[in-house]
Amino acid sequence: MSCISAPIAITTGEPAGIGPEVSLKAALALSAPVVLIGDRSLLMNEARKLGIEGSLPGHITIDHVPLGVPAKAGRLDVKNVPYVIETLARAHEGVSCAGYSAIVTAPVQKSIINDAGIPFSGHTEFFQEKAHVSRVVMMLVSSPKKEALRVALATTHVPIRALADTITGPLLDDVIRILHRDLCHDFAITRPRIGITGLNPHAGESGHIGTEEIEVIIPAVKRAIAQGVLLEGPLPADTIFVPGHMDKYDAILCMYHDQGLPVLKHVGFGLGVNITLGLPYIRTSVDHGTALDIAGTGTADIGSMTSALELAHFLAKNRETRKA
Amino acid sequence: MSCISAPIAITTGEPAGIGPEVSLKAALALSAPVVLIGDRSLLMNEARKLGIEGSLPGHITIDHVPLGVPAKAGRLDVKNVPYVIETLARAHEGVSCAGYSAIVTAPVQKSIINDAGIPFSGHTEFFQEKAHVSRVVMMLVSSPKKEALRVALATTHVPIRALADTITGPLLDDVIRILHRDLCHDFAITRPRIGITGLNPHAGESGHIGTEEIEVIIPAVKRAIAQGVLLEGPLPADTIFVPGHMDKYDAILCMYHDQGLPVLKHVGFGLGVNITLGLPYIRTSVDHGTALDIAGTGTADIGSMTSALELAHFLAKNRETRKA
Repeated sequence: MSCISAPIAITTGEPAGIGPEVSLKAALALSAPVVLIGDRSLLMNEARKLGIEGSLPGHITIDHVPLGVPAKAGRLDVKNVPYVIETLARAHEGVSCAGYSAIVTAPVQKSIINDAGIPFSGHTEFFQEKAHVSRVVMMLVSSPKKEALRVALATTHVPIRALADTITGPLLDDVIRILHRDLCHDFAITRPRIGITGLNPHAGESGHIGTEEIEVIIPAVKRAIAQGVLLEGPLPADTIFVPGHMDKYDAILCMYHDQGLPVLKHVGFGLGVNITLGLPYIRTSVDHGTALDIAGTGTADIGSMTSALELAHFLAKNRETRKA
Repeated sequence: MSCISAPIAITTGEPAGIGPEVSLKAALALSAPVVLIGDRSLLMNEARKLGIEGSLPGHITIDHVPLGVPAKAGRLDVKNVPYVIETLARAHEGVSCAGYSAIVTAPVQKSIINDAGIPFSGHTEFFQEKAHVSRVVMMLVSSPKKEALRVALATTHVPIRALADTITGPLLDDVIRILHRDLCHDFAITRPRIGITGLNPHAGESGHIGTEEIEVIIPAVKRAIAQGVLLEGPLPADTIFVPGHMDKYDAILCMYHDQGLPVLKHVGFGLGVNITLGLPYIRTSVDHGTALDIAGTGTADIGSMTSALELAHFLAKNRETRKA
């Protein structure tokens, strides 16, 4: 298997959580260059737990960001919040200027960042703002494999009460365009087939259960089809995921969070990866949290981090090949 | 295995669809008394296709309702709408007065019923009105087995725009009470454990993504727990269905259609059963439509009808045992 030449950056996440552990373990398992962004002592301490004395294997380097105060497993400390933010900023600079090929993010703890007085609603928004892009798309995949289930979301953390008004023609145009382009380019799928759900139960049942399909979604689907996108829908969300049906699509575009993610997480638990489409660079993430309760025990499951790293590697290779 | 003594009534559904075929085939496979409600000639014609000349096996009888005009496979005829409605009315009378133990419904075609000028929004509403009950609960199960996934819905065919206002304290009180009672009584689960989802993504994330959890759902959960219901939640809908997590519950109560049914139908396709809880009698249904395109070809999949019949049999036995 060919390898990328530029390293993948892993932001090692909240230092009191399982981030450093899963980042190092997943990096050790990959046969491609990786940069761990985080505190050198913290990461070398994890290495020693795995029996690694002296230096790390040649494919792993550390981009050292010093902790504010020593990290204690399971105990959040607001004094380390600037450290966490700096690891993310370093990753952004690295993919933008220093030749890193992709960013993979270990979990951070949103609440402690907010407690430190820093407005932070998530990695996705952080990188979106840094990269100055007006629209990104959250997609989750059930595994890094080619035949994985891929679910993209038109909206993410919107209250149900505000949802219907959030689904607009311009939003759908952007989301479909970004999804289609990134499936073509980064996933190297020649003519991606996309299934799109309705907003309402039974996709509105011809207007009997809501009119957004007729007024907003169907016109957007027609515009996309006219642009050459292989798009099918709007389809009822309760039948699009039936085995044999969902396999027809390279990705399923759902209108909202709880319409698309229950099946994705049911199918993919432990290996699910979160991808931000629409950034100028590749960014994947674990789909779990900091797991403070088991931090420091050495028992964290590295499945999702390994998947996120493998997928970032696959996408980075495709991007390198395309540019070559 | 013990058997029920009173027959299960099957309404054989739209005569131009696959209803008569799947009803007869599923009845033949059951070793318990069944009454097929429908046109005798239509049903005996199906029997002949299966090589049955003369009379049906002893456990199957026909409650004859004459067709308006002869049925043609795949072709809806508004003249047979009164026939379809009469089969449903006969079933209701049968369970109410004539000693039928349960109703199992084959699919009808809602559009042709409405074309005939009869307001009809579904079997559920039809029986609810006939039985004069103010609240019923739709539950789907992935199979008739004990370890099946069971998903109950607080709301069914509500547009997303109207959804948040539909979730009220009195609604949840009723739904939880009916679900808990029917799991205890009809499913014979001694202390059913129920997981309940939030309305919003991440179950509202402590009020950051919507306030209905705090204002409506959590108070209802507390009231139910105070009544002795083993209820857990509100939980995020995207993680409650993760394998190992969802298995902790005898049923999962979701707030709405597309939050609960995608996983249910993903898991249960082909064997899924729709159950109406809260009626004075047992009613189960297939989870598919009339399949006009394959009607008359003898190729219909009887999985869902067989499941619906088996489950009705199981529930009817439990009810008989309880009364005995």
